[in-house]
Formats: sequence, C-alpha cells, structure tokens
Amino acid sequence: MAEKIIINDVGPRDGLQNQEKILSPEQRLSLINKLIEAGVRDIEVGAFVSPKAVPAMAGTDVVAAGLPKGDFGFSALIPNRKGYDLAKMAGINTMGLVIAASNTMNEKNVRMSTDQALLVCEDVLTQAKQDGMKVIAYVATAWECPFEGLTDEQVVIDIVGKLFSYGAQEVILADTIGAASPGQVKSLMSKLVAEYGAERLSCHFHDTRGMGVADVYAAVECGIRKFDASIGGLGGCPFAPGASGNVATEDVVLMLNQMGFDTGIDLAKLAEAADLAAELTGNCDGGNASRWIKRQIEKGELATAS
Amino acid sequence: MAEKIIINDVGPRDGLQNQEKILSPEQRLSLINKLIEAGVRDIEVGAFVSPKAVPAMAGTDVVAAGLPKGDFGFSALIPNRKGYDLAKMAGINTMGLVIAASNTMNEKNVRMSTDQALLVCEDVLTQAKQDGMKVIAYVATAWECPFEGLTDEQVVIDIVGKLFSYGAQEVILADTIGAASPGQVKSLMSKLVAEYGAERLSCHFHDTRGMGVADVYAAVECGIRKFDASIGGLGGCPFAPGASGNVATEDVVLMLNQMGFDTGIDLAKLAEAADLAAELTGNCDGGNASRWIKRQIEKGELATAS
Repeated sequence: MAEKIIINDVGPRDGLQNQEKILSPEQRLSLINKLIEAGVRDIEVGAFVSPKAVPAMAGTDVVAAGLPKGDFGFSALIPNRKGYDLAKMAGINTMGLVIAASNTMNEKNVRMSTDQALLVCEDVLTQAKQDGMKVIAYVATAWECPFEGLTDEQVVIDIVGKLFSYGAQEVILADTIGAASPGQVKSLMSKLVAEYGAERLSCHFHDTRGMGVADVYAAVECGIRKFDASIGGLGGCPFAPGASGNVATEDVVLMLNQMGFDTGIDLAKLAEAADLAAELTGNCDGGNASRWIKRQIEKGELATAS
Repeated sequence: MAEKIIINDVGPRDGLQNQEKILSPEQRLSLINKLIEAGVRDIEVGAFVSPKAVPAMAGTDVVAAGLPKGDFGFSALIPNRKGYDLAKMAGINTMGLVIAASNTMNEKNVRMSTDQALLVCEDVLTQAKQDGMKVIAYVATAWECPFEGLTDEQVVIDIVGKLFSYGAQEVILADTIGAASPGQVKSLMSKLVAEYGAERLSCHFHDTRGMGVADVYAAVECGIRKFDASIGGLGGCPFAPGASGNVATEDVVLMLNQMGFDTGIDLAKLAEAADLAAELTGNCDGGNASRWIKRQIEKGELATAS
C-alpha cells in the first residue's frame, strides 16, 4: 500500500486572488469541480476578506453554496473573527486562519502586531472549538519576510506552539514569497517535526526562485505528508511584493506520484484543470513540467506518473 | 569557510549540440568567456564527434585553440578513441567519455552493445593513463532510458565500478532524459556514495519534468559536491527523444549559494551569460528562477544569492 500524501489545491483562492481578471463565482466553481474530477479532495475555495481589499474573493459565499456535497476538505481563508463568522454562515467547515511570523507583515496584512494577531487567533480558535469547527492555521512568511528579511526559526516554532495550544488542528508553514531553499525548509521543518510531530503540519510553497518542488521534496524527507499547491502554478499575494506563482499542483503531483506516494490525483485530468485555469484567467503558463505532461498525454504515455 | 561545490557548465556542448541555429566557434567562445567572467571554472567546451551526426559541434578544435590559459577545467565530450585522439591533438586535457547504462541507448548512440562500449572505455582510459590525461566518464541514462524504461541500479553500480577500475578520475551520473525524481536520485546516489565515496562522483540532470533542481538537492544531501548544469537551461540530446532542457546553471547556483555553499559564481554576471545564450541561439528562455533573478538585479538586491 502506497503511503498517502494529501494535496490541498489553493488555486481557487491563492491562485485567483491576485489576478487582473476577476472570475465570477460560477467560473470559480467550474475550476473547483475540474479539480475534484482529477481526484483533488482538499481545496481552498475562497476567502472571507474585505471585498474592497481583495475584490477577486468577493462572492465566496456564493461559491460555498455551490460546492458539491461529500467527503471533501473545503477550506476558506479567514483573517479574523469577522471572516470566521462569515465563513461559518456560508457553511464552510474548515477555516484557514492566517498569521504572519513577521511583525511588519502582520501590520501590512491585518494592521496588527504579531501579539495582537495571536490574540485574534486565540479568540477565533476558542470560538471554533465551541462550534465544533476545524481550523487550519497558516504561518505566513515562515522563512522570509519581504520587509524584515530572514525569519527567526524560534519565532516560528513559538507561534506554531501557540496555535496548537489554542486548538488549531493543523498548522501550515507558508513560504509566502517563495524565498526558502530546500536547506532552509529542512532546517525549520525538522525542528517543528521534532517538537510537534509531522501529522499536524503542512507546507505551502511558491516557485518564485524555482525551488518550489525541491522545497516539497525537502519537507517530504522531514516526514510532511500534506502540501498546498496551486493548479497551473497560479498565484501570488497582493500584500507581499515579489510573491509570484505558487508551486504548481501538477509539478508536485508528478513528483510525488513518481516517488510512489498515493495522492489520489490523475495527472491527465489535472492537466485539464490547468488548461481551464489558463482559459479562465488568461494568465497561467502551467507548471515547469506542464510541457512534458502534455506531450505524454498526446503520446498516451503517462505510465511513470500514475 | 563555506564548503565548495563545483559547477561544470555544459551549455557550450550539451546546450548547443541540439540547437537549430549552429553557432560559429567564435560565438561559442564568446559564451565560454562570459561564463568565465561569471566565475565558472569548469566548462564542457564542445565535443569531438562526427560533424555529420552533430554539425553543431564541428570546429571544437577551433574552440579549443581559442580557450584562455589558466587554471580551468575545460573538458570535451568524446564517444571513442578517435574522439580521444582528436581532443588530445586539439590540446584538451580533460576528456568527457560517455557510455550509457542501457544497451539500446549504446546501440542508438554509438552502435555498440554496453559490453562493447565498455571495451572502448577501457581502451581510451588505458591510453589516457599513459598520456597523463584526465578522463571524466559519463554514465548516460543512469535512471531511465527512453527505449528501455527504468534502469536497474545494480547495472549502473557495476558500470561505475568498471570505469573507476579502468582509471576514470571521476564518474558523472547523467539523467539524460530528465526522468529521475529526487527519490530515485537519493536511492542510486546513496548506494554509489557508500560504494565509491562522494569525492569522485558527479551528477548531470535535465529539467524535463521540472525536478532538476530537486534532483540536485537530493544529490547534495547524499554528499555530491560537483554538478553539471547548462547556462539558461539550454539543452537536449539529439539521440534521446523527449530530452529537453538541462537544469539551468542559474537555478542551481541560486539554490546552492543560498544554501551557503561556495560555488565561486556571481549570479548577476551569470544572468548576462544566460542573456548571451538567448541572443546567440534565439532559443533560450532561461531557468525557472531567471525572472526573479532579473528583478533582483534591477532592484540592486541579490543579497541572498551572493
């Protein structure tokens, strides 16, 4: 039996939030459904944030209402209690709560210091526990901040510990600006795994410096078995200058499938989802392996990737 | 003191041999000199192969005659004794001898079985020892062959042992078609390092499936401290269908410099070499990190990559 690795596709949120072209909830749902067809079970379907700040995420409640029923891990990003309440009202049951490891990033993102943002996290997590909601907590700029530079590992380790103590079911270490080398990933993740175990940890990488796939591999070597990735490599963060391109789901799935892990995802159908992402946004080149994947599909040879 | 990693840029050979546009020896030398300006000391400058089969490598003797003097590791690819004699006559003192791990690949490449090709290697290496020449021996299709599929690790381990026993100073494991996952790299390289030590081993990856940089990382983790890479990601092998794009030198150097290794290579100057490769060939997009590298240069911020 192959060991499972869970892929959480964040394309419908992280991938779309910074696009010039704003998609309708129906278009967003069509992308989500295409991902589901490919075997993706965990999807970040949107965000409950200010529609003024991030207009592309307006209507996430409509997206939520249109989601298929079943055993899926649909999550939505929430920055605070208001986002939590809106997400809960929309019927979302996995909340993606975000805090940055860097003080300046928290100030820029949510106009709070890290300590203030931690209080918000505690409040949301306490409420979520009462409501029986699942919260997965993101630690943004876990390796480097565009404003403060390299992040102190101990700061991250402490924040992760606090999030768990507040009741987070899972913590996701996010390399928001795609700055981490696999060596840095190994360094931080091995410490976090030693401290908290691999089961409740996940990673989120961008391919800005061409190291996204290597970063995933480094984290796999540390025992991590859940990853964010974005269909077609869509992505970027409006508040993080220099952030561009999440690591592409197809690149990650190709590597993991080939390494013998069970992602449950069909690469040929995933390529169709990447095509749809390109068609909808007009701004998606696909992952680094997309040309190879397409050629294999044309030749009817995707054997090593199944 | 940072640990050294040697980068051998194979762009002027592996990168150019399969281009539609054939460069003059002067153009090839201009690319070599640009690499040297960036701090690259090891360069595969050409090949002594049939000019009919690989017209782009005709005139490698002219390239050799125009090389700067100094403490460089200039090598040329040779398929056999004739290539050896021509390379020696041209003043090359490091020979890149090639044999494939797969029988069919040897048949297609040099019209010999693996056993016959090993006899050729033994002959060339015996002569090289007498002549005091350095030979670095390539094992092509070390992970997968486009004709035979996955390569048996024991076959590779045995060929590497024979090459060392014949007198090769170094053996380079080449993923000729860019098929290996980092998991497969770790599996083979850890066995080879256990058997022969890391000092005499090197790796050569292609980025066909978007795993080139991850493969380099996996090999670094096994103790490998010398890598082939190709400026701008130029590359491909005329005899290996599906092989496209060596792992880009700039992507590898960015990662290794950031991980604290001393490559001796300046990324900003390397970007100039990639620009020249693009200008000369009209067919070079640069590595996956090239957009990021250019933006950093424009902003005067290449601090993390120095």
